[in-house]
Amino acid sequence: MSKYVIGIDIGGTSVKLGLFTREGELKHKWQIKTDKSDNGKNILNDIYQSILSTLEEQSILLSQVDGAGMGIPGPVKKDGYVETCVNLGWKDCNPAKDLEAFLHIPVFAGNDANVAALGELWQGGGKGADTMVLITLGTGVGSGIIMDGKIIAGSRGLSGELGHVTVNPEEKESCNCKNHGCLEQYASATGIVRVANGLLQNSNKLSKLRELESFTAKDVFDAAKEQDEVAIEAVEILGEYLGRTMANVTLTIDPDVFVIGGGVSKAGQILMDVIEKYYRKYVCLSSCVGEVHLATLGNDAGIFGAAKMALDM
Amino acid sequence: MSKYVIGIDIGGTSVKLGLFTREGELKHKWQIKTDKSDNGKNILNDIYQSILSTLEEQSILLSQVDGAGMGIPGPVKKDGYVETCVNLGWKDCNPAKDLEAFLHIPVFAGNDANVAALGELWQGGGKGADTMVLITLGTGVGSGIIMDGKIIAGSRGLSGELGHVTVNPEEKESCNCKNHGCLEQYASATGIVRVANGLLQNSNKLSKLRELESFTAKDVFDAAKEQDEVAIEAVEILGEYLGRTMANVTLTIDPDVFVIGGGVSKAGQILMDVIEKYYRKYVCLSSCVGEVHLATLGNDAGIFGAAKMALDM
Repeated sequence: MSKYVIGIDIGGTSVKLGLFTREGELKHKWQIKTDKSDNGKNILNDIYQSILSTLEEQSILLSQVDGAGMGIPGPVKKDGYVETCVNLGWKDCNPAKDLEAFLHIPVFAGNDANVAALGELWQGGGKGADTMVLITLGTGVGSGIIMDGKIIAGSRGLSGELGHVTVNPEEKESCNCKNHGCLEQYASATGIVRVANGLLQNSNKLSKLRELESFTAKDVFDAAKEQDEVAIEAVEILGEYLGRTMANVTLTIDPDVFVIGGGVSKAGQILMDVIEKYYRKYVCLSSCVGEVHLATLGNDAGIFGAAKMALDM
Repeated sequence: MSKYVIGIDIGGTSVKLGLFTREGELKHKWQIKTDKSDNGKNILNDIYQSILSTLEEQSILLSQVDGAGMGIPGPVKKDGYVETCVNLGWKDCNPAKDLEAFLHIPVFAGNDANVAALGELWQGGGKGADTMVLITLGTGVGSGIIMDGKIIAGSRGLSGELGHVTVNPEEKESCNCKNHGCLEQYASATGIVRVANGLLQNSNKLSKLRELESFTAKDVFDAAKEQDEVAIEAVEILGEYLGRTMANVTLTIDPDVFVIGGGVSKAGQILMDVIEKYYRKYVCLSSCVGEVHLATLGNDAGIFGAAKMALDM
């Protein structure tokens, strides 16, 4: 009888779920709404009920499921303990242990960015690597770090916070975290728009971006591809700070590969070119340059990584 | 019959050796000259002969020795392979395998800074931690990274090169590595002297340092302790760049503890205070601050770490 694992990726809006064969094939994926009422106390029961009914539909017995993994949008300690998860309203709990009590199969949990990194390592842009850093350029900048195939949770469950590395101590505007000059202020989707707006305000240069009432990160990259001077400058600033951060990470843990994901990564080659340019510039020891790949799993990275957690345990 | 392991720390001038009980007691330590003639081809045989004669003196049989570890001053891959070790003249070799062929006991090798970090974790300033970053402030800035008790060698054997993290891209003078603005240019013994000299040249401020024909890192710290304005500024610059680097490392791998070693660390509390000030400033997520300790093993860290490598395998 075939054996399966379940990958669960809990977000603030929806919970994504995937049923995987032990060989890594995604057999079925689905999602449910995240019920954040009452400090998210129904979330795990909703997941449990949804798993039961989906297994029923798929004619699979719970006894055919070897385990489940779970990505959580906040810090998770190695033993699954969650001190606080602002996005879901959870406090002082161990959701993996709680879901285990419902399902009676082993459940493992990790921070969602770290879990997504494990997914990209297993079946995505980092396939074949042992050590990988995933950098997700979305609304913010997230990251996850895998060493020797295992998630690095960090001493306080806070590893992989590359979005808040200080890249420009001279920055006047403050980041969401209250510090100044965090990578996220330049390299996220909101960051590059902020930078481009600043450049427009501080110069009289012609730019297609001035013709738009408001613009997105995609607009900035599209304009840069058409040689718009202001857009190119914003892209260069992103590349300089992100490439330098990657160089500094390389001089710390020397990973096999960096994988770049998130909405901004859809810019494709122009983004990869500018990142590589500055990454190579700041790694003085040339033999120390890791590969840089684009992520390939998109929004499924989380369920893939969560399934892999269950397989690895 | 008691069992032992041997720790070997190969430097450009001397090879330090230590005979340890399996419980971690250093029973005997000694050193021999590093013979760099003929591209260092005699080094391993010299080590072998020295081990044999020392065991004889100590009335210990080679069969009582379970294994040896070796720190090498250059990049070492996980399998012990050394592509090039400029300091010793070695190229394309596997010194651990070669020494194993002499000794007929298991031998393991690692980069010397990483091995020293393992030593500080085992019996020094990082005792009790799982994950630790050793930063050695000597002539240069070296570092070694231990995660879950294991040395992180990195994909290309080049992890822990924190001395060459770019902290100030505006720097005009170039580092030994040819890049500009590396941490080593500010936080090493030579770095802080360089910075203080620059400050003296660019101002007319009174300073005790002007009275000295030439001065050392120790002189700068001593002057700072006596409220010398220029010296204090040089110490603040060191703290700013080192503290920010430690914050960025924390946001990458979130270690339990940082251990600060090397000659500059003898400055003691004044150094720890300035590092902690900037380290805390740049870790925006306050719960993410790791502990900072001084190294305690001095020049013996390498033989301790090398012995631990042998014990762990």
